[in-house]
Amino acid sequence: MHAYRSHTCAELNKSNVGDTVRLSGWVHRVRDHGGILFIDLRDHYGVTQVLCDPDSPVFAEMEKVRSEWCIRIDGNVKARDADLVNDKIPTGEVEVFVRDLEVLGDAGELPLIVFGDQEYPEETRLKYRFLDLRREVMQENMKLRSDVVASMRKRMWDADFREYQTPIITASSPEGARDFLVPSRLHPGKFYALPQAPQQFKQLMMVAGFDKYFQIAPCFRDEDPRADRSPTDFYQLDMEMSFVEQQDVFDTIEPVLKGVFEEFGGGRKVDQDWPQISYKDAALWYGTDKPDLRNPIKMQVVSEHFAGSGFAIFAKLLENEGTEVRAIPAPKGGSRKFCDRMNKFAQQEGLPGMGYIFWREKTADAVAQELGITVKEAQAKLKSGEVEGGMEAAGPLAKNIGPERTEAIRQQLGLDVGDAAFFLGGKPKAFEAVAGRARAVIGDELGLTDNDRFAFAWIVDFPIYEADEETGKIDFEHNPFSMPQGGMDALNGDPLEVLGYQYDLACNGYELVSGAIRNHKPEIMFKAFELAGYGKDEVEKRFGALVNAFQYGAPPHGGCAAGVDRIVMLLADQDNIREVVMFPMNQRAEDLMMNAPSEPMNEQLRELHLRVIPQE
Amino acid sequence: MHAYRSHTCAELNKSNVGDTVRLSGWVHRVRDHGGILFIDLRDHYGVTQVLCDPDSPVFAEMEKVRSEWCIRIDGNVKARDADLVNDKIPTGEVEVFVRDLEVLGDAGELPLIVFGDQEYPEETRLKYRFLDLRREVMQENMKLRSDVVASMRKRMWDADFREYQTPIITASSPEGARDFLVPSRLHPGKFYALPQAPQQFKQLMMVAGFDKYFQIAPCFRDEDPRADRSPTDFYQLDMEMSFVEQQDVFDTIEPVLKGVFEEFGGGRKVDQDWPQISYKDAALWYGTDKPDLRNPIKMQVVSEHFAGSGFAIFAKLLENEGTEVRAIPAPKGGSRKFCDRMNKFAQQEGLPGMGYIFWREKTADAVAQELGITVKEAQAKLKSGEVEGGMEAAGPLAKNIGPERTEAIRQQLGLDVGDAAFFLGGKPKAFEAVAGRARAVIGDELGLTDNDRFAFAWIVDFPIYEADEETGKIDFEHNPFSMPQGGMDALNGDPLEVLGYQYDLACNGYELVSGAIRNHKPEIMFKAFELAGYGKDEVEKRFGALVNAFQYGAPPHGGCAAGVDRIVMLLADQDNIREVVMFPMNQRAEDLMMNAPSEPMNEQLRELHLRVIPQE
Repeated sequence: MHAYRSHTCAELNKSNVGDTVRLSGWVHRVRDHGGILFIDLRDHYGVTQVLCDPDSPVFAEMEKVRSEWCIRIDGNVKARDADLVNDKIPTGEVEVFVRDLEVLGDAGELPLIVFGDQEYPEETRLKYRFLDLRREVMQENMKLRSDVVASMRKRMWDADFREYQTPIITASSPEGARDFLVPSRLHPGKFYALPQAPQQFKQLMMVAGFDKYFQIAPCFRDEDPRADRSPTDFYQLDMEMSFVEQQDVFDTIEPVLKGVFEEFGGGRKVDQDWPQISYKDAALWYGTDKPDLRNPIKMQVVSEHFAGSGFAIFAKLLENEGTEVRAIPAPKGGSRKFCDRMNKFAQQEGLPGMGYIFWREKTADAVAQELGITVKEAQAKLKSGEVEGGMEAAGPLAKNIGPERTEAIRQQLGLDVGDAAFFLGGKPKAFEAVAGRARAVIGDELGLTDNDRFAFAWIVDFPIYEADEETGKIDFEHNPFSMPQGGMDALNGDPLEVLGYQYDLACNGYELVSGAIRNHKPEIMFKAFELAGYGKDEVEKRFGALVNAFQYGAPPHGGCAAGVDRIVMLLADQDNIREVVMFPMNQRAEDLMMNAPSEPMNEQLRELHLRVIPQE
Repeated sequence: MHAYRSHTCAELNKSNVGDTVRLSGWVHRVRDHGGILFIDLRDHYGVTQVLCDPDSPVFAEMEKVRSEWCIRIDGNVKARDADLVNDKIPTGEVEVFVRDLEVLGDAGELPLIVFGDQEYPEETRLKYRFLDLRREVMQENMKLRSDVVASMRKRMWDADFREYQTPIITASSPEGARDFLVPSRLHPGKFYALPQAPQQFKQLMMVAGFDKYFQIAPCFRDEDPRADRSPTDFYQLDMEMSFVEQQDVFDTIEPVLKGVFEEFGGGRKVDQDWPQISYKDAALWYGTDKPDLRNPIKMQVVSEHFAGSGFAIFAKLLENEGTEVRAIPAPKGGSRKFCDRMNKFAQQEGLPGMGYIFWREKTADAVAQELGITVKEAQAKLKSGEVEGGMEAAGPLAKNIGPERTEAIRQQLGLDVGDAAFFLGGKPKAFEAVAGRARAVIGDELGLTDNDRFAFAWIVDFPIYEADEETGKIDFEHNPFSMPQGGMDALNGDPLEVLGYQYDLACNGYELVSGAIRNHKPEIMFKAFELAGYGKDEVEKRFGALVNAFQYGAPPHGGCAAGVDRIVMLLADQDNIREVVMFPMNQRAEDLMMNAPSEPMNEQLRELHLRVIPQE
């Protein structure tokens, strides 16, 4: 017999009754039922109930066994009594009577209980990650992650892509975030950098003729941590292809991601139609470039209804250039209570408030007031049909702008009795983000957002440049590698009007993918950088390899990168990326289990020709 | 039609004749045959011949096109004349008459020609890697590497392993080599390290109950570069499993590697029998712990035949304790010329020489001398049978030790007429390595080594400890994670006698795999370290996470790591690892294309609280 196991803890069933078996695993729970010990023995695959009474030669030893000890037992498989069968586990029809025991690894007092679902502080969980990971949900999350990555690979292979590995110890790649540096021992005073992404390498591979590349690529950014981002290394499904246009990239990656979400989405609906929405429209409709399309609310411009209206705040505001009033329709939000709550939300977000209108059945109160009669009389008139009932717009805004404008707004937004609309005005940049958050809250609170669904949208036509609010200085909006739509001609016009072949994929409010058709023409690249204030020398210094390579027959190419951790997080229905990473750092970029970072030995610093500057 | 191509450059055949097609690719070669331009258009997939004459509307533009320009052409597919068909390429039956041309990326003067097989200095190749990689052999090497890694993954999945990713920015792991350090910005004066291997993490995963882990894992060692090793990052097929013994690991990884070598070995024979050879026997038989078993030579101890013999050097030497004389049999090496050449080899290796005996047909010369007759008379006697011919041992050694001992040696080694044997004596440690190299040279020179074959051997039973030659201090021979055979009991005896459950896989003279059954018992681990002079505090400081984890129910576990780059190198039949790495560093650990390492910006150093110490 094998030294440790004849079966895993998930394998035994009725057909094994009478067999002598050997199992190894961890003591999940021990129960003592009047001199009979029941132990749930757990391994990676499942749980088997083993039991022991004083008839067993190892009863005394078994009594010493505690939770999370790793043990090996030999025993006989027995059928459980019918009323003790556990339908929830595959081994639930049997149990194993223990005849021999070996303690493979005992355990001290546990800082963290593995069974059950008690919550522990993150510090405890990360320091004792090897215990935390034994919990069922963590085992499932890690298996899911592994299976998702494997599925991505298979799907990319099936699409005729090969995976090529790019260097990890390499040159600084100034792409926006901060590099991690690695001092060189052989070249004192010089440093390598860890790649923020294999961006330049994958483009160089296209220049080298590899045509279709992908990689589950480790990426490194020295950024301040947050919930949906690892503080140090994270993984991307990175891909690039030659001789393609934007739609080719979409056509390639869409089925891969759809497939992954369908395979691992746990039955949640996966939208088949992935609309392409311009950056501009996304900002208008959703107040963000990563909209959550599970929420059906689409904002609209309603400036015309407020221009010159009796609502002085908006009317006056609209006299300034570049201002707009936008409406957030809120179907089923037509109650004063809800509207007031949203108004409060806006105040918490730092706005003076959020104007609203809501539509309701005409009430007897309103009729009484209108006709100067009592409420009772009004009720009678409504009942008899002498006075028509129907819809009425409520809220101070409606009064200020009057019934005609109010009705025009209602018609534009397609609202009805029981619905509401909220209004924000000013320069769009100033209120778009709040509007987007208000839209999300409205969708959630009114139950409009379908949580059991993955909704995707390609956001396209990003502007290449943006102007600094204060200085007006032009800089790249996204990254500098994208091909401007219209090529060189476009760059000779107003930079702020130039759009790029650059795209993101949004899913349920997260940015899952980012990519572009690249600028592979050196002269257009230099011009693009020039507009952002970078001279030729600077470009050659920063992106020398790429610029150099483009002089030797560069093909048109493009691609994208999908955030693996974030995709797994969505599929696992987790809010924190650390739940889907095997050994994550904490929020302060520390590994509490491994004790990293730590102080180097003097000898190490000497070899690297470095000195640490003491802190004041 | 697609903007860039209707077909790849490998797709067109007779069935496309008459079609209008669009191709994109690089101008491989241009030939001008009296006003007709022939261009081999190349992409990742193949080559298609396109041609153009003055009838084409783009003839003038086509005349400007040069090697390695990236172009898009439209044209009509035509059948080639029967005598112009090229059987060597799939598109050899057709050619495309060009009607439209777009230059996608032109090229300057080339530092490196892509077609043909001109050799270039490594510096040029690495600086212009994007051109170097366009060469057919490099495209094939990279595809091979990608396919090998994909195959490894599929085979590990089929063996029920999951791939889990371990941290790259982590803690220093003092495993023998030098760490690369990464300064922490958030924690001034502290450093992360890049993992030399995911050793501790994979063991922690076993403690966490993951049962079967693998990873195509990037590993980082700040070592001085050499041909079969990358100077910075390299990849291992890293695996670990719980509840296993040594043979279980072999049974798991053997079919994976056999499969990979059979799939990609290009028809070379893959040995099915992988012998398990003890470290001690390997040293004796092959003079190395990474023997090349394609070479059939097996060394033997022949001390008894020299002890007290007339060959004073060996006889005297054998009077000292711990000395031995070993023989390297050299079948078919029985000529003075060859023996002298090997003697010279030994001198080049720093030895005084290498004694030898060789066996030949008895010559008339020898008979004449023996009987005191003329050579002619001797010839006659041999011919008539009056004197028996047969075998004779030649070489000074044979004379010194006399015919009986010589014959006993011959019989022990199983040699015959035409064969030779070489002898080395002393303390084995002092000559084993040279003996091993001599064995390799003999095998090669005599054509004994079968180059079209992959021969594997597990080297097992490594000693856990070794003693420093000078100080006698005991230290770990390999790595400190292996379980000593015999457990705690063994550690209470002579440390130098303790063997470990530790193993390597040798293939054709390279170490391909290294692994062990791990020491998962904290008390045995502390004891093992104690013997090597490390106190409990030191162990807890260096391997704190592991030692800590082992206190909480650690399972027995073991695994191994296979060198991906080296395996691909063998399969691609290359001698240098840089031929199978997409963007390798040079021997000085510099990336000439990306210009790494490079000087950091002052701002970066400031953020990291570091100062570079100026060189004297």
